[in-house]
Amino acid sequence: MTPFKLTDELLAEIEQLIETQKGPELEYLLGDVHYADIAEIINELNEDEATYLIKLLDSDKTSDVLTELDEDVREAILNNLSSKEIAEELEELDTDDAADIVAELPEEIIQEVISEIEDREHAQDIVDLLRYDENSAGGLMAKELVKVNENWNVLTCVKEMRAQAENVTRVHSIYVVDDEDVLKGRLSLKDLLTTSTTAQIRDVYIPKVDSVNVNEDPEEVAKIMSKYDLEAIPVVDEMGRLVGRITIDDIVDVIKEEADKDYQLAAGISQVVEADDSIWELTRARLPWLFLGLLGGVGAAAIMGGFEEMISKHAILFFFTPLIAAMAGNVGVQSSAIIVQGLANDDLKGSVSNRLFKEMLLALLNGLILAAILLLFTWFWKGDFYTALAISASLVAVIIVAGIIGTFTPLFLNQRGIDPAIATGPFITTSNDIFGILIYFWIAKIILGI
Amino acid sequence: MTPFKLTDELLAEIEQLIETQKGPELEYLLGDVHYADIAEIINELNEDEATYLIKLLDSDKTSDVLTELDEDVREAILNNLSSKEIAEELEELDTDDAADIVAELPEEIIQEVISEIEDREHAQDIVDLLRYDENSAGGLMAKELVKVNENWNVLTCVKEMRAQAENVTRVHSIYVVDDEDVLKGRLSLKDLLTTSTTAQIRDVYIPKVDSVNVNEDPEEVAKIMSKYDLEAIPVVDEMGRLVGRITIDDIVDVIKEEADKDYQLAAGISQVVEADDSIWELTRARLPWLFLGLLGGVGAAAIMGGFEEMISKHAILFFFTPLIAAMAGNVGVQSSAIIVQGLANDDLKGSVSNRLFKEMLLALLNGLILAAILLLFTWFWKGDFYTALAISASLVAVIIVAGIIGTFTPLFLNQRGIDPAIATGPFITTSNDIFGILIYFWIAKIILGI
Repeated sequence: MTPFKLTDELLAEIEQLIETQKGPELEYLLGDVHYADIAEIINELNEDEATYLIKLLDSDKTSDVLTELDEDVREAILNNLSSKEIAEELEELDTDDAADIVAELPEEIIQEVISEIEDREHAQDIVDLLRYDENSAGGLMAKELVKVNENWNVLTCVKEMRAQAENVTRVHSIYVVDDEDVLKGRLSLKDLLTTSTTAQIRDVYIPKVDSVNVNEDPEEVAKIMSKYDLEAIPVVDEMGRLVGRITIDDIVDVIKEEADKDYQLAAGISQVVEADDSIWELTRARLPWLFLGLLGGVGAAAIMGGFEEMISKHAILFFFTPLIAAMAGNVGVQSSAIIVQGLANDDLKGSVSNRLFKEMLLALLNGLILAAILLLFTWFWKGDFYTALAISASLVAVIIVAGIIGTFTPLFLNQRGIDPAIATGPFITTSNDIFGILIYFWIAKIILGI
Repeated sequence: MTPFKLTDELLAEIEQLIETQKGPELEYLLGDVHYADIAEIINELNEDEATYLIKLLDSDKTSDVLTELDEDVREAILNNLSSKEIAEELEELDTDDAADIVAELPEEIIQEVISEIEDREHAQDIVDLLRYDENSAGGLMAKELVKVNENWNVLTCVKEMRAQAENVTRVHSIYVVDDEDVLKGRLSLKDLLTTSTTAQIRDVYIPKVDSVNVNEDPEEVAKIMSKYDLEAIPVVDEMGRLVGRITIDDIVDVIKEEADKDYQLAAGISQVVEADDSIWELTRARLPWLFLGLLGGVGAAAIMGGFEEMISKHAILFFFTPLIAAMAGNVGVQSSAIIVQGLANDDLKGSVSNRLFKEMLLALLNGLILAAILLLFTWFWKGDFYTALAISASLVAVIIVAGIIGTFTPLFLNQRGIDPAIATGPFITTSNDIFGILIYFWIAKIILGI
């Protein structure tokens, strides 16, 4: 398949059709377009056009479109819909997606919207889900699942299942519970079909089933599901009762968001933003880290001011300060990135002191190679071996310290329960700039005997 | 569930049991442990211990363990197994996992291993898969799928399906093909069960089915599957013939690897490495970027050497070079990271000139705020308003240029078909260091009238 590509021509055509209120033509044009693609189109329209299109199309399609829209676009559209219209959209959605939308509605209309949902069981499930912290397994799960009681026989089970499966897009597994709704195990569809209809479920189910607690961190759920290659996992409450189910498509989103967040933190962007966000939003995300960099630079300048007496005889030392700062920053970011990733992927083994020792060796090796090149260059440039030696020797020391800081900081933050990803990027760069320049001048001063 | 945690005690116990050849105790101890967790254990054992354990346990478990091991550990173990033993492991695996392992074997034993596989159809599927580029949909797909001919009736279909489903862990969809094996559509299990057994498949199947070409880039497949929330997608060849199927668990791995790679590139690490890799591997991945940083630093030093005559009257200008370099680097990394992510997520809209204009405005805003702070600080520190002004004004110019370079470079690389992620990290930092310092001294020189 060729993925859908939103062209300027198509967008212009759609806008034209909306302006001239050509409803049937629009329905025909968008009939075969996937809801994720329609969401892409609507993200580009203005509020009135977007609302017109949502009201025009069937709610079994537009409900899915709503879940895929940019948050601000969705908010604007929902503002233009009546409580009844919103309720109709929610009716078509799985409970987890519906609850996410309800959570974004203004407080004062939530009750009215909920009361307009005709399927009362669906409404109750949505309200149940509103209780859970967004950042937990409970906030991620849906109520749609297929469950059977261990005390039923296979025949009852098949009948009940058929009714339940109506509301569940993908069955994956049939969960077995006891009279208290406590999760006991699972059943495969295959087993169910090959067993006598009078057999008791308690005699045929598989008692081993992975599950997560409602309070579990979504990242942890993602790790479990991807490590064990699960396509769905049941969620249980504090009493072990089956309360919901998380499917792999939600986990794919968690993994992508997490990766985006870590990447942006490493690049010095403090909250998840997109290229198309407003200049104010982008400034708010970027300025804090730049300000940190400014502080680091001012600190470095103050340190250099303290060594001002060296400037007349050894101006060249000052020419290499950007190099020292850059190397300290780069080494620090490299070391911390490897640790942050190791922590995220749970594949960091051995003790902290072993790790620091290894990083020291690595920094020493890299430092010596780079210092040798720098020594030759500076010696030939200025013809002064001792100055060249001072600069190169300091570089080795700076690289070692930078590597240690880069390794230690994320490990320390992690132990304190702070996301180690904030240690990469500007944080490490800035502290390493200051330490680097201090060490550099200090060692140079000793070697040059000033 | 509490995720499995490999403790030092457990590892010591296992090593002890292996040393004393307590086979039955080991089988009992590891009986309920998931294969992904056994792989974690084996990664920590030495070669002999690992081989002992693999030979001890059943091949229906060890085959899955093999797919989860670190590459070097797997290589060492396979070296100790006979061709027949390897063939037995491959027999248990899905074709995609089996082909991945065969591709890692030494050339000279591949033929022998393949000849030892008893299931000849399975062997042929594995050999077929070896033909595809690792970095394509073909390299990712498995041969296991359920397909039916459009000319069959429902009864034949159900019979055939049962036989095929034996080898397929998760069915997801039933694909419909014509006599030439060309993919025509799909069937839902539900439809199949509610239709008369004499109905022709061609009258009941859904003719709309998403598919990807064997040559498609895995990243593109990941985008399609996650955008459209697909759990499996069929793969077709140049003639539209159904040749395989990709499932979401493989795509989760692609997404994670891609994110890891981008993150490491942004941190200046040129190939995917882990914290536990050897010092040589880590050096090979890190040194090239550090060398680039060294070149940038030498370039900056050379530029400063060219402005040496300013040092006697305006030494303070030289104190702020690390600050200028750091700010140029940070702004460049921020801008490029946002573009790289926008490109990766396909949510970058509008023209390049609009984007550069927006980035200029953003840089101007950030630059003015930071420059105002710096101006006050420098003015109070040295009491010289003109020098303070020169430094602050240059900072604004440097930030704007850094933002433009950071925005333009990944867009340019992407247009040239080069992975824009290499533009972040040391690449942008280094070029921005040099440009930044050049602009800084140049503007300072104009303002101070030297």
